[in-house]
Amino acid sequence: MSKIRIGIAGYGNLGRGVESAISQNEDMELVGVFTRRSPENVQLLSNNVLVHKMDAITDFADKIDVLILCGGSKNDLPEQGPALAAHFNTVDSFDTHAKIPGYFETVDAAAKPNGKTAIISVGWDPGLFSINRLFGEAVLAEGATYTFWGKGLSQGHSDAVRRIEGVKGAVQYTIPAPDAVGRVRSGEVPELSTREKHTRECYVVLEDGADAKEVEQAIVTMPDYFSEYDTAVHFITEAELKQNHAAMPHGGFVIRSGKTGEGNAQVMEYSLNLGSNPEFTSSVLVAYARAAYRLNKDGQTGAKTVFDIAPGLLSPKSAAQLRKELL
Amino acid sequence: MSKIRIGIAGYGNLGRGVESAISQNEDMELVGVFTRRSPENVQLLSNNVLVHKMDAITDFADKIDVLILCGGSKNDLPEQGPALAAHFNTVDSFDTHAKIPGYFETVDAAAKPNGKTAIISVGWDPGLFSINRLFGEAVLAEGATYTFWGKGLSQGHSDAVRRIEGVKGAVQYTIPAPDAVGRVRSGEVPELSTREKHTRECYVVLEDGADAKEVEQAIVTMPDYFSEYDTAVHFITEAELKQNHAAMPHGGFVIRSGKTGEGNAQVMEYSLNLGSNPEFTSSVLVAYARAAYRLNKDGQTGAKTVFDIAPGLLSPKSAAQLRKELL
Repeated sequence: MSKIRIGIAGYGNLGRGVESAISQNEDMELVGVFTRRSPENVQLLSNNVLVHKMDAITDFADKIDVLILCGGSKNDLPEQGPALAAHFNTVDSFDTHAKIPGYFETVDAAAKPNGKTAIISVGWDPGLFSINRLFGEAVLAEGATYTFWGKGLSQGHSDAVRRIEGVKGAVQYTIPAPDAVGRVRSGEVPELSTREKHTRECYVVLEDGADAKEVEQAIVTMPDYFSEYDTAVHFITEAELKQNHAAMPHGGFVIRSGKTGEGNAQVMEYSLNLGSNPEFTSSVLVAYARAAYRLNKDGQTGAKTVFDIAPGLLSPKSAAQLRKELL
Repeated sequence: MSKIRIGIAGYGNLGRGVESAISQNEDMELVGVFTRRSPENVQLLSNNVLVHKMDAITDFADKIDVLILCGGSKNDLPEQGPALAAHFNTVDSFDTHAKIPGYFETVDAAAKPNGKTAIISVGWDPGLFSINRLFGEAVLAEGATYTFWGKGLSQGHSDAVRRIEGVKGAVQYTIPAPDAVGRVRSGEVPELSTREKHTRECYVVLEDGADAKEVEQAIVTMPDYFSEYDTAVHFITEAELKQNHAAMPHGGFVIRSGKTGEGNAQVMEYSLNLGSNPEFTSSVLVAYARAAYRLNKDGQTGAKTVFDIAPGLLSPKSAAQLRKELL
């Protein structure tokens, strides 16, 4: 059987995770990595794959079945998503929730007339968590859905702390409040404020001579990022930051709490406990690349989301094998 | 908007649950219940719906968009599934795992030539648990999947205890072993024996003069049902049985524990905590009835399983609304 030929556009944490995930899937092969950096400065995990300049990517249109877009949602994907979906079947992890409807339209307009299939906003949130929010309300029509994130390192919040004057280095963890999670799991349907759902914890290395009190105050009062939360700030050394806070764990829960019949409580819960957030997202992208390939073969073109993908399309197993082994 | 017209074939716990679930979904209406009993002896929850004899069901072929089959997997569905899929779009909860491939073929052979869509083996296991087993291995290609059931009342095991001489009444609960669940959740990938994964607990009412020791021995040594498990037997009064063991709770977990990259542990977990097992299964059936209706409108006929159904088809919301609200 010929393998599904995958290309990677953008080689950061996510691109490296995709390369690693492809090596775990025998029905796929990585045929090229594309970067805006100088290719000679990009070191892949494998020695058998070439790195090319992003400018040359359309030369590879016939050599790649699915291109996995590993750029960021803020600056890369709004431009690359539509541009590349005109030439390739694509999968991306566009995760700016509020902008998804607009992004879907621009990618669809590029992919459809060119006979390409583009699955957008793949990963765990948006992605697997979204699917579970949908299942929750479709199955338990009367109820409430709760999403909790963490314990996990938030890149955006860490960056926000690092931008404060006097901060040399920092990481921020989002932590679901155990009490809130417990109430939801018990079948209660509480109304929870932002402050009640999550707490935030920052580990900060100060610049020489910086005032710890001032930095702490700047963090906990920062609008949008911290002011609505209870935030704990811990000051640590640079050595501690490197040694204890280099991993990128994350995870969380989607819980649907509903009632059926004469008031029977029913609770559905989906949870992830991830040792590496980017590697997990990459693994999801690779599974959806398989679906993009199959959908395109089947003539189903244009932009799609995880809501449009039948689960069976994600597995290397045949439909008959899935019915026999997993149903 | 015209509503999706639903029929119910078979009115036990599951049929009653379907009737109740339909009342929670505004885009559906129940148009008839079909029974092999005398219709006048069947009391529905609603007074606005008629009960008909099962024999007359094909007279209603034009009045029902989707027929939900609420019979049992042992005796009813093997015959009713194919017979009714020749005349109706159907959804059923056929749950004899080993016989699913054969059942799929017979239902497909009946539905396809008649232009009908039949979604088989819908519920939570098979059903939502199956989907999560599939997602687990598709996303984390290197890892192991664990399914735990309970704490929950097992109908089959309760029946087996009731058949023992000297037993007047009984219920059996399946309980996942906390130690095993904890090891799997921690990211360990243990090999677990049947005995290590679950324990069983029986609450038994004795007939007058029956020997408790003999009954207990007959239970714990029963092959297939109990001999491979650690089983606790509690003797209770008939009043206690009625008061404390009339509910039908169930649930369980599907856990995928895998590794990515250089060995980062990743754990995906799906869990259900159900106050009423039949009502939850019914709620799943009703969501899939919506999908069956849409697939048939779209010309996608024949037998399907949950693996073939895109999540978006389950929701009353439009694709654009789902992207905006849930992705």
